[in-house]
Amino acid sequence: VARAVASLVDAAAYRAPAAHGRPIRAPGHYAGLLRIGRETLAVTTDTVGTKVLLAARMDRWEEVGEDLVAINVNDLASVGARPAGLVDTVLCSRTDERRFRSIGRGLRRGLARAGCSLLGGETAVVPDVVEGTDLGATAFGFFPRGRRPVLGARIAPGDRILGVPSSGVHANGFTLVRRVLREAGLDPRRPRDGGRRPVGEELLAPTRTYSPISEALAPLPSTHGFAHISGGGVRNLPRLSPRVRYVLDRWPAPSPLYRWIQAQGGISDREMYQTFNMGVGFVAIVGERAAPEALQRLRRAGARDAREIGTVEDGRGIVLPALGLRYEGYA
Amino acid sequence: VARAVASLVDAAAYRAPAAHGRPIRAPGHYAGLLRIGRETLAVTTDTVGTKVLLAARMDRWEEVGEDLVAINVNDLASVGARPAGLVDTVLCSRTDERRFRSIGRGLRRGLARAGCSLLGGETAVVPDVVEGTDLGATAFGFFPRGRRPVLGARIAPGDRILGVPSSGVHANGFTLVRRVLREAGLDPRRPRDGGRRPVGEELLAPTRTYSPISEALAPLPSTHGFAHISGGGVRNLPRLSPRVRYVLDRWPAPSPLYRWIQAQGGISDREMYQTFNMGVGFVAIVGERAAPEALQRLRRAGARDAREIGTVEDGRGIVLPALGLRYEGYA
Repeated sequence: VARAVASLVDAAAYRAPAAHGRPIRAPGHYAGLLRIGRETLAVTTDTVGTKVLLAARMDRWEEVGEDLVAINVNDLASVGARPAGLVDTVLCSRTDERRFRSIGRGLRRGLARAGCSLLGGETAVVPDVVEGTDLGATAFGFFPRGRRPVLGARIAPGDRILGVPSSGVHANGFTLVRRVLREAGLDPRRPRDGGRRPVGEELLAPTRTYSPISEALAPLPSTHGFAHISGGGVRNLPRLSPRVRYVLDRWPAPSPLYRWIQAQGGISDREMYQTFNMGVGFVAIVGERAAPEALQRLRRAGARDAREIGTVEDGRGIVLPALGLRYEGYA
Repeated sequence: VARAVASLVDAAAYRAPAAHGRPIRAPGHYAGLLRIGRETLAVTTDTVGTKVLLAARMDRWEEVGEDLVAINVNDLASVGARPAGLVDTVLCSRTDERRFRSIGRGLRRGLARAGCSLLGGETAVVPDVVEGTDLGATAFGFFPRGRRPVLGARIAPGDRILGVPSSGVHANGFTLVRRVLREAGLDPRRPRDGGRRPVGEELLAPTRTYSPISEALAPLPSTHGFAHISGGGVRNLPRLSPRVRYVLDRWPAPSPLYRWIQAQGGISDREMYQTFNMGVGFVAIVGERAAPEALQRLRRAGARDAREIGTVEDGRGIVLPALGLRYEGYA
């Protein structure tokens, strides 16, 4: 996949005249950045991916509607941009009013959490291309007067790593989740061992929206970086800065749902932490002495569950000492 | 489809706080508009649709790559916005380096014609959702200092309708095109009667980019409206203003390709003009006395083939007198 994408990106390389806006280079980052007049814009695009297949199986669409907003505004949050607008793309083999209304309700919930306007959308009924329903969106945001993009350049040894819990597996790892369900012959409409509601509902829990986290911390000069822990798990951290080591020595114990997926699928710790968010959906990296004020701001912004989960050190890669895990980077 | 989309849009309705940007109402228009700080942004999103199925059949992907940029920047051109950035979404059942490189080359060509930067993209390999390859994108643009969005509010009886030729069927009407090919048992790899190259190649001709047209005319106060003649054909005109009649009394004779499609499929004039662009891909509506200067500007911008094709009159709907055709509006 990486090679194919690289061949598309290489072939597409083009430098637009400055009168059409000036792109800001932020390689490997979560959002594209462009300077237009006196404003800097951030833009992200993502699809819900194969989580829609579980939505179809459970016939529940509100959650993935909310996901569609959250996964995109969380990428904006990772560069410290305030969400402004979103456009959605629904591809489907046929239209279904009830399903579309559920998706719309989920979109509204996500938009309201982020403070983002819906600026348009596209619905394509393409039965020869798509089976079921695919959900994609593009979001863009901006930097209010005086705020600069938060891109990780000032991350340095000694910095503190703060983690904000996830609401579940969000919209990542569903290829693996579906394999586990299939191979174990499990019906997602029934509870797992120790669960109270259908495991499919647990898995569908909508992605938490981290825009308020970013809004609370992005204005502080002591905020050095943000990471949305999406596909790739903890390996997302070196996208911020590859020149340090991320020591995650206080990562919280993952919830029973992760332990259940791991046990059902016989999956290694290494695979789990590079596929799922493992209970921490968003990370903020702040200066050594800034952690107490940052945590206080997060509490005021409604994130009482944020906590310090590690430290930035000299070196390279990501380390989870309690599990004996070490990753080189995102690759 | 319209009812399902309406149920999604109604359910999604949400009004964001003003600190997150202020949407500008432009109902039915080609692009969403949002005021952020001192800039106004326009955003559009669209997919190539089922034209990708012909690309797959012909194993040619550069054209649809270029289409993907053109269909989006042409919607920006319809509100007078200068293209700034684009993000693409490729959904596929498997990756293929050669195919991806061709798509990338086409993107580059489209970006260069519009002066637009590629700001990111998403590639999802989702074999359980998509068969083949789907191409979607979102583009955004802005209004250089002193330029205002061109939304059709000043369109009035007496205005002149200028048309700029298309390069072919662009990326619309392919459900009908494919039905015609299938029912007539025609192989798109062979020329049509009277054609020199495979009819599939003729049909794949990339969408013409109208950004230079819009850039040339949008700064003039005498420019009252623009329309990208895409899906819906001439019925796109009342999206600009429903309070007048569009009399298209000098529409150019369509090229042999359209006549061939019509004859093969036994399709009525009414159906043809509400499905295809019929040789005119972009329309500008200018004040009564502004046509000569506008045409001169278009010639300087490289569009020597632009010409006057009709007049705005009192009344409602769209009229093609030579064909005895009359349409009420878009819906």
